[in-house]
Amino acid sequence: MTEPAIKYRLIKKEKHTGARLGEIITPHGTFPTPMFMPVGTQATVKAMSPEELKAMGAGIILSNTYHLWLRPGEDLVKEAGGLHKFMNWDQGILTDSGGFQVFSLADMRNITEEGVHFKSHLNGAPLFLSPEKAIQIENALGSDIMMSFDECPPFYESYDYIKKSVERTSRWAERGLKAHQNPEKQALFGIVQGGGHEDLRKLSARDLVSLDFPGYSIGGLSVGESKAEMNRVLDFTTPLLPEDKPRYLMGVGSPDALIDGVLRGVDMFDCVLPTRIARNGTCMTSHGRLVVKNAKYARDFSPIDDNCDCYTCRNYTRAYVRHLFKADETFGLRLTSYHNLYFLLNLMKQVRQAIMDDNLLEFKEHFFEEYGLNVKNPKNF
Amino acid sequence: MTEPAIKYRLIKKEKHTGARLGEIITPHGTFPTPMFMPVGTQATVKAMSPEELKAMGAGIILSNTYHLWLRPGEDLVKEAGGLHKFMNWDQGILTDSGGFQVFSLADMRNITEEGVHFKSHLNGAPLFLSPEKAIQIENALGSDIMMSFDECPPFYESYDYIKKSVERTSRWAERGLKAHQNPEKQALFGIVQGGGHEDLRKLSARDLVSLDFPGYSIGGLSVGESKAEMNRVLDFTTPLLPEDKPRYLMGVGSPDALIDGVLRGVDMFDCVLPTRIARNGTCMTSHGRLVVKNAKYARDFSPIDDNCDCYTCRNYTRAYVRHLFKADETFGLRLTSYHNLYFLLNLMKQVRQAIMDDNLLEFKEHFFEEYGLNVKNPKNF
Repeated sequence: MTEPAIKYRLIKKEKHTGARLGEIITPHGTFPTPMFMPVGTQATVKAMSPEELKAMGAGIILSNTYHLWLRPGEDLVKEAGGLHKFMNWDQGILTDSGGFQVFSLADMRNITEEGVHFKSHLNGAPLFLSPEKAIQIENALGSDIMMSFDECPPFYESYDYIKKSVERTSRWAERGLKAHQNPEKQALFGIVQGGGHEDLRKLSARDLVSLDFPGYSIGGLSVGESKAEMNRVLDFTTPLLPEDKPRYLMGVGSPDALIDGVLRGVDMFDCVLPTRIARNGTCMTSHGRLVVKNAKYARDFSPIDDNCDCYTCRNYTRAYVRHLFKADETFGLRLTSYHNLYFLLNLMKQVRQAIMDDNLLEFKEHFFEEYGLNVKNPKNF
Repeated sequence: MTEPAIKYRLIKKEKHTGARLGEIITPHGTFPTPMFMPVGTQATVKAMSPEELKAMGAGIILSNTYHLWLRPGEDLVKEAGGLHKFMNWDQGILTDSGGFQVFSLADMRNITEEGVHFKSHLNGAPLFLSPEKAIQIENALGSDIMMSFDECPPFYESYDYIKKSVERTSRWAERGLKAHQNPEKQALFGIVQGGGHEDLRKLSARDLVSLDFPGYSIGGLSVGESKAEMNRVLDFTTPLLPEDKPRYLMGVGSPDALIDGVLRGVDMFDCVLPTRIARNGTCMTSHGRLVVKNAKYARDFSPIDDNCDCYTCRNYTRAYVRHLFKADETFGLRLTSYHNLYFLLNLMKQVRQAIMDDNLLEFKEHFFEEYGLNVKNPKNF
């Protein structure tokens, strides 16, 4: 039996919640948990340099198997020396399996036991992705943490459909595990599905835990259900997962959902939210969202967030950032992207401190209050 | 009589050419000459941060009065504490007068002795720019070096027209000088015009030198004439300018033209060329231009320029930069923009060393040879 590529070290559990402080040791450095992972879909975190990501405290980023498979192709990335070298990033990389993109981006998919037939969102070319193919691509990319190929059905799909899907996802996870070429260098996670059904989440977790993955992802959330619904599912799902392995809640990145996930025992998160809204001129701040393009900031010479000490907030005003957006200058995207990523990474740093101090619930209350002041509908933040 | 805002210190003249080594002391730091100035049209050098510009050795940048007047407006910039503070740049800034943009960008212009009536290129609004108005805007922006409001007629305009234009530009220069509010903080340059006519360049230089500006610009070049024609005009124009003042050749940024300008006694240059072609995926290299988007670089894991030690060339391959462009990732623009600006700033550094060593002609020969190898028509580089 080979040593797994990563190790999870549990440092401390909070007294009155499920929150846990830990660290994950990867072949490319160690990062503390709970952690938010910036998303670099196409081998780059949009508008950011690797040095900037390091400066803001990102110890691991996510990249997308589906996108890199289509362009530039996993063979090219492998020839370049792997994804780390290709994109000049020497810290941790997690790759998804492509499953989510197949179900969210691609056209005309046809799911069989063998895998999924679908068409490229770039040029309509017919494509086929299977558990084995996804693993082969992820092996070529050389990420530190890989995802099993899963099906991510809509949250409100029928019970019968989700049950069949969960069973197939378990079989796919096992096939992926067998296809995995170097478990000593890349850690493969299983993905727990099951929608909003406790018995199906149990079934999924039982199947996957029996395969002894070095970590477990929670999939099928943040796909349209309410925050309350997500929390309800987490309440009964994280306790199904082993304490000595990391838990990764996929696709979640709003500040409230991060805190609520941590309170329920989640260690890792990722989401395009901070960079996507940044490119639209929307910033996360300690007082809620701020749309810096708005006319009212034209002569506002204060920083985006007066409680933030990021590069953007230390050096630039709302008036300047607004000017850059109005003038279509890409430096504007850099400044808001930096700020939003820093905001979430710094939030997680504060969350880790709160766990250490056994006061994450008080931290949450204070954060939500501050943050709600200027936000009409905090659930959509 | 107040002290001028800037000082030019001539360090050395080359033995067999007109090239000169010097430095310019501004209220925001000192930079060596000959120098290339990156262009930050809208209060930002496209895709670059101030820290990156400093790291590549830029001691002064150019910003555009016309653009900042229209958006965000000079009053707002002044309220922000001036252009340096607004854009977080504590080194030198040179502003043009808006004259060139009025003649190249704006619609339906009508030139009178008083100034120019025209329409905004943004929204068609009627606008009026005069020597006094241009200076008022530049005073509000707070640049270290300001330009007089001039007319820049097409190179092949009739002799009679250019003569009248030169005479008007001289009168406008004098009006600008009178309107200038703080010559002890901002140095106003006169702009020598006169097209391709030696007598008109003489007339222009005589008029302007009699007004004793702290520096002189050479305008009306790089506007469609050949490189040979530009060099011919420089041959008889720079000797008309005082030795103890800096000389700035406006709008010139191709490597060959920079070297040829320096050989004829020019100290300062600016051009959007390096950043503009960078955004199109074209890189300046020691072996000529390289279009990194080309398919032949898909699996080329060498740097953009094997003789370059810039951030981009030290850390990224042609294959990666090409991938970023194919995938429409803005980090690609960052990498090529950084490289091209570094290339020109580093070229000027080598040029300064060559002047010190009295071998700029040999340097030019070697550079042109290397650079011509992969370039079909070096005149268009």
